[in-house]
Parts: sequence; structure tokens; C-alpha cells
Amino acid sequence: MYRFLISLIILSLALQACNDKSAPKPIVMQTDFGLKDGAVSAMKGVAYTVDPRLSMFDLTHEIPAYNIWEAAYRLNQTVPYWPPETVFVSVVDPGVGTDRQSVVAETRNGHYIVTPDNGTLTLLADEIGIVSLRQIDESVNRRQGSSASYTFHGRDVYAYTAARLASGKIRFEQVGPELNRPVVKIPYQRAELKEGVLKGNIPVLDIQYGNIWSNIPDSLVQKAGFRIGDSLDVKILHVDSLVYQERILYANTFGEVAEGKPLGYLNSLLNFSVAINRGSLAEKKKIGSGAEWKIEVHKN
Amino acid sequence: MYRFLISLIILSLALQACNDKSAPKPIVMQTDFGLKDGAVSAMKGVAYTVDPRLSMFDLTHEIPAYNIWEAAYRLNQTVPYWPPETVFVSVVDPGVGTDRQSVVAETRNGHYIVTPDNGTLTLLADEIGIVSLRQIDESVNRRQGSSASYTFHGRDVYAYTAARLASGKIRFEQVGPELNRPVVKIPYQRAELKEGVLKGNIPVLDIQYGNIWSNIPDSLVQKAGFRIGDSLDVKILHVDSLVYQERILYANTFGEVAEGKPLGYLNSLLNFSVAINRGSLAEKKKIGSGAEWKIEVHKN
Amino acid sequence: MYRFLISLIILSLALQACNDKSAPKPIVMQTDFGLKDGAVSAMKGVAYTVDPRLSMFDLTHEIPAYNIWEAAYRLNQTVPYWPPETVFVSVVDPGVGTDRQSVVAETRNGHYIVTPDNGTLTLLADEIGIVSLRQIDESVNRRQGSSASYTFHGRDVYAYTAARLASGKIRFEQVGPELNRPVVKIPYQRAELKEGVLKGNIPVLDIQYGNIWSNIPDSLVQKAGFRIGDSLDVKILHVDSLVYQERILYANTFGEVAEGKPLGYLNSLLNFSVAINRGSLAEKKKIGSGAEWKIEVHKN
Repeated sequence: MYRFLISLIILSLALQACNDKSAPKPIVMQTDFGLKDGAVSAMKGVAYTVDPRLSMFDLTHEIPAYNIWEAAYRLNQTVPYWPPETVFVSVVDPGVGTDRQSVVAETRNGHYIVTPDNGTLTLLADEIGIVSLRQIDESVNRRQGSSASYTFHGRDVYAYTAARLASGKIRFEQVGPELNRPVVKIPYQRAELKEGVLKGNIPVLDIQYGNIWSNIPDSLVQKAGFRIGDSLDVKILHVDSLVYQERILYANTFGEVAEGKPLGYLNSLLNFSVAINRGSLAEKKKIGSGAEWKIEVHKN
Repeated sequence: MYRFLISLIILSLALQACNDKSAPKPIVMQTDFGLKDGAVSAMKGVAYTVDPRLSMFDLTHEIPAYNIWEAAYRLNQTVPYWPPETVFVSVVDPGVGTDRQSVVAETRNGHYIVTPDNGTLTLLADEIGIVSLRQIDESVNRRQGSSASYTFHGRDVYAYTAARLASGKIRFEQVGPELNRPVVKIPYQRAELKEGVLKGNIPVLDIQYGNIWSNIPDSLVQKAGFRIGDSLDVKILHVDSLVYQERILYANTFGEVAEGKPLGYLNSLLNFSVAINRGSLAEKKKIGSGAEWKIEVHKN
Repeated sequence: MYRFLISLIILSLALQACNDKSAPKPIVMQTDFGLKDGAVSAMKGVAYTVDPRLSMFDLTHEIPAYNIWEAAYRLNQTVPYWPPETVFVSVVDPGVGTDRQSVVAETRNGHYIVTPDNGTLTLLADEIGIVSLRQIDESVNRRQGSSASYTFHGRDVYAYTAARLASGKIRFEQVGPELNRPVVKIPYQRAELKEGVLKGNIPVLDIQYGNIWSNIPDSLVQKAGFRIGDSLDVKILHVDSLVYQERILYANTFGEVAEGKPLGYLNSLLNFSVAINRGSLAEKKKIGSGAEWKIEVHKN
């Protein structure tokens, strides 16, 4: 009986060893490094060295250089589709080497973001919520032998810390001291409904297709009383100058208007968007994105 | 003895649990989304949420926007190099929201393709063969909470269904009802040998190098009696206008002709191709690809 | 007791079976194929077919077509961040089909590189050291059914051999016969300190940002007596004509100079580099990279 019990105990340990293999959390990386050199691969090599079992994925590495706003937007767009405890790494870091702090943020849904705290967390903080912010303690969470280098935090601090967190080598509490302050935010215009007019900004373009995405959510569109089939008057402004004005159909899908015709629709994030069926509205009308771009829509 | 047998049974269950970890089939994704935003990453997040053990790979995300023909070509080019039961996801979907059907096709070799049935399966059907086509039943195979969104089938239906199939959560039969019709096909010219002249189309360019790939297989080249060292007369036509005409060497490899000189050769798919050694023939002669491009070759 | 021992033996075998799952070494791929077609995916499919447990990563697939020098540079930049026994595949192969040899090199640190021996190993040989070079025996290490194709060694030989090596299906000794000769090298100017002037070449640009990276290591910079805060005179030459000359600050980080101002710094590889804070020096001054580009620096 005694031997049988020992057998079972060893067996359960063996099973645990097996199950442990699936224990690491995924790492999802975003940078403005592009994929033409070895920078992203070096980050992955450092993470792999921490734990070969880690699963690593890319969000994008094509954030325009130094564009913190777009980094903030892409994170906010993608984080919700990954399970809790996923560890995101975002390295768009024009202020590398200055006094911006290296942090790990925990969202309300339990995701972790490893990033310089330079505005990258703006939209996650506003739309999902950040429940805890810790500064990375580089005396422990920094790759050995990297201290002489001042310029590649992405590899030596962020990828390394993310790998330690995702693999369970450290708990969130071991990242470093909690910061009792809100995250650094980039100012931008919120979506609002005022006297029947929906106002918002254009946080980003759907660049592959040239569609215009706004920050106006489905709920506000419904509150404004827009219904599929309605005709809408749309204005797009850069700072205060009018760039685009047109009467368009509010539709479920692109196929409901003829090729080359404009439509309003809810994008995959359920935000109000404007597009041309099989064409690039952004290119045709030279519409850009960022905090200085605004959209106004009302029912005809 | 009894205890020993129980031990062995538990042990074999434990081993199975371990082996189950390698059970999921790989997912290979292709889209026209590009990699500048979070769309592909959201698809992977959805799949990862279905089963963290899944291995995910990319075919390409740089299919030119809405180019179903090129999607069909890339799939057909790549599918044979992956093992049976690999689950491909192809999302080039200009008709999203119209009545095109969302399907999973099974090839003769046991690969699965999750895609809108809009022509993407044309070349696989012709060259490998589709043995079964099922419509995705979105009442079960659609990500929870996604029904209000009309525009991101890639994430909410295709990636989700692919993940369920690849992980074994559903069998192919559980995708949805079998469709007793052939796949939707794009018309294109087949390769043929007629009175000593090989005719075919140019399905795609070898874009990185500007080489011209045809759909004329090695077997037809042999039937035409071409041998390495032969001199060949090549014509390339767009619809019916002559774009390129030259006498070229039929060679095994690029190194057999001088830099800047043209050659005919069999590409890695063993199809007849034309190139310039260390130059871009496509760029130099403005040669394109698609159903309207034709090539004619005969021995000098 | 006897049964108990048998139990333990089976158990330890079971555990080994489990642990074997983490046994494969990672594969890291680099090519000049781009990601627009299915070539890289076919390579991964071939490797996956050899062993589904393999972890595959990308270094870059955006090496400019035929640019062996840049392939050599990217490998040398990235290899050190991956653990020993990592298997790299590098396919930049303008001489495919000529008499260049297909090899696997073992570095002093125990990394393996599967590549045509055409100069790709130049910088690894000089900076890390190659301790063994074996020619791939294609009679065994070539994908079955691929012999009729002359042009896709990347898939049929390199990816296949890498997968066999990384998965443990073959040992390094089973790659093929050892070559008792040095690797093929591209000539280039070494870094040197001569009469107070540091000389070196510009192996590569930090293309995403347009920064100028040299091959002059930190150790030589220290030997030259440069200190943070020093003012440095920099010259950049193409062959022998002066392209750029400026007095710049030697700084730890970009943030130490005003936007638009130049600085000297150590990059993430701890090599001397020149940049403009938030600007592209390469673009502004039309500076390129490669063996024919030189840099000279001395203290003001």
C-alpha cells in the first residue's frame, strides 16, 4: 500500500510537470522597429533564453517611428482579443534614456503591458482601465551584461521582464515598486452627442484599405437614433479646417453600396467609420488621423 | 497485482494527457490585411483563447487588397508543403456581408481551408481537388459576443472556426452542413501544348525578384521536347497585345547565363518561368500577372 | 518490490517522453524572399512536417535581394541573443545552382547556421568564430521528391536540414562531411585606432530611423579616450569622396541633444554610431552602408 501511494504521488508530480508545460502565458509584441533588421528577433531570443516554452506573437512592428498615439491605439484595439494574463510588450520610445519610467501596467481585465510610460497606455486607461502600475526594478529585471548599453531597453529590459512575468519566474508584484499615480496620457477629444450631432476624433485609419475609423461607439450612434438605411451628413476637419463633407448611406456592409460609393458603418470594434466601397477614402480626400482630426455626423 | 494494474492504467492516461499536448493541428493564416494594424493579432488572440496549445503560422498578409486571384494562387502554392489536417485560414473578402458563403473545404490530401467561397479555392480545386465543402454554421461556430459586428468575419468566424477545428474541439462534420455544389471558380486559361507551341497564363510574379512564373508544368515542357541548353522563343501578351518577345536560353539555374541576361527555367513549383539573372524582368518590361496575361513558348 | 521498480522505470520513461517535448532547439530564419508570397511559409511547412514540436522564429525576410553582406551583418547582430544550439537558416543565395557549397557552420558559442557558403558567414567568423564547417550531404539531407527542382534549396535543403538538426533527428556530425577550410569571406575594412583617429566602416544603417552604425566597438572608443560630453569631429566617406563632416556631441542617449541635432552614441551592439535626434541622418545626407563606406572620428 505504501509503495502504491508513493507511485501515485510520483505520478501526480509527473503529471504536474507535464501540465506545467502549458503554464506560460503568451507574449504579444509591438514596436516601431520594423522587421528589416534583427531587433525584434533579438528581443525574442532574449525571451526564449528566459524560458523556451514561451509562446510569442506579434501585434505589429510597423508603428510609424516615434508615434506613441498609434501605439496606444493598436494596443487598445488588440488587447481585448487575448486572454487575461497575456503579457504585451510595447516599445515606441522616443524618450529612451530620458526620465520616462519603464513600467508594467495591469488592466482591469488582467492583461499586463510592459512599456515605457510615455502615453502608450492612454487609451487602455480610458477604455478598459488600469488597476495597477509598477515601475520595473532594473536592478533585478534587466538582462545580465546589458548595463553598459543605454539604448536598447526593448531587448534588455522590456522583453526580458515580459518573459520573466509570462513564464512565472516573477509575479506581477516582483516587477518593482507600485506607482501611486495615473498613467501618462496624451490629450484627445472624446466622443460626444450634442444637439443631435455626433462628434469624435479619428484615432487611426484602416490603412490597408484607406477607411476612416472614428472613436464614436455603437452605443452613441444608437443614442443619436441612426438606423441602417439612413442618410447621414458627415464632416471631417483637420484642426478647424474642413477637409471632407458628404452625404452618405448608413449601411451594414460595404456590399450595400455600389463600387466607388461612400458609406457609414460600424467597424470591427463597433465604432462609427466612413469608407468607399473598394476604394481608399483616406487617399482620395487626403484624410489623416491623430488627435487633431475630428469628425462630425448628423442625420439628414 | 491489482494495484500494479491500476498504476499502469493511470500511467497510460498520464502519458496520453502528455501526448494530447501535441495533438492540435497547425493553423496557417493568409489575408489582405497587412501587418500595420492589430487585425491579424486579434485573429490569433481569438484562436489562442480557444486553445493555448495551438501552433499558428503565417502564409502572407500582403495579398493585394481584394485580390482573390492572388489569394487562390498563394494557397495553391503553399498548401502542399504542410502536412494533412493543417487548417488554413484565407481572408480576402471583398464581398463580406453579401451572400457569399463562409465555408471550410477539405482537399484531396486532407488539408482544410477556412475561407469565404468567392474564388479563393479555384486553383486548389483544379490542381489538388476539393473532396468536401461545408458551410460554416455561425449559430455555433462564431465567437460569443460578436453578433453585432458585421464586418470582421476573419476574426469572429474564420479564425474562431479554424481554432475549433485545429484543436479538435469540433470535427470537420461539425463545421456545418455539407454543400453539394462545386466551389466558386474564377475563369482562367489552362496550360496547353498546341502544334509545338506551349500556351499558358501568368498566374503570379515572383515579386521579390521580378521573375515571370507561368502555369505551364514541367510535364508539358517535357512533352514539348524542351531540353536544357535549347534556345526558346518567348512571347508575353496582355489580353491580345504583345508586351515582350525574346529568344532565351533554357537553363537549370540563373548562374548559367551572364548577369543581366534572360533565361527560361523551372521554378520551385516546377512550372516554366522566365527571368533575368540578377535583374527584374517584370519591372524592365512592365509585365504583370493575372488571368488576362498569357505566355507562348516554342523551340527555336 | 519488483513491480514497484518496474512502475518507477515506466514512470521515468513517461517523464522523459514528456520532457522530450521541450527537447527541440529553436529555428530562426532569414531570407531575401520578402513575405508577399508563400516561400517562407513553405519552408516552415517542410520543417513542421519533419517535427511538429519545432519552434520557428523569423530574423528577417527583408534582406535586400542578393545582398549577402547585409545577411552577414544581420546574422552577426542577432545570433548572440539566442541560446546555444539554436539553428539559424540564412538563404540569400544569388549563386543558387552554381558551385557554392551548402553548409552548416558551428559557432564558437554552439550556434548552428544553415546557409550557402557565399560570404554570409563573414562577420560571424571574424567576431564570434566558426569552429566547424560541414557540407550538407544532399543524398540524405534533402526533402524527398524534390530532386527535380533546381531552384528552391531554401525549402528543400536548408529548411529541411535545419529541422532535422533542431529536432534531434540528426546530430551535427550527420549533416555531411567536415570541410577543412575557412568559410568564404567578403573583404571589408576593420575598425582601427591610428594616431588618435578612429577608422571603421559602416556595415549597415539602422534603417527604420536612418541612424549610422559603424563597426567600431566600445573598447576602441574607450582606447581613443572619448568621454560622454566630448565634442567629436566625424567624417563619412564613400570610397574616397567625403559625404558628411560635422562636429557632434558624444552622448549617452538621444534625449541629451535637441530635436534635429546630431549626436554620437553607442548603439545596442555597443558600436559607435551617429544619428540625428528624431530625424534620419542617412536620408538627410544620403549616407549608405556596405564595405565601400568609411567613417573617421577624432576628438575635437
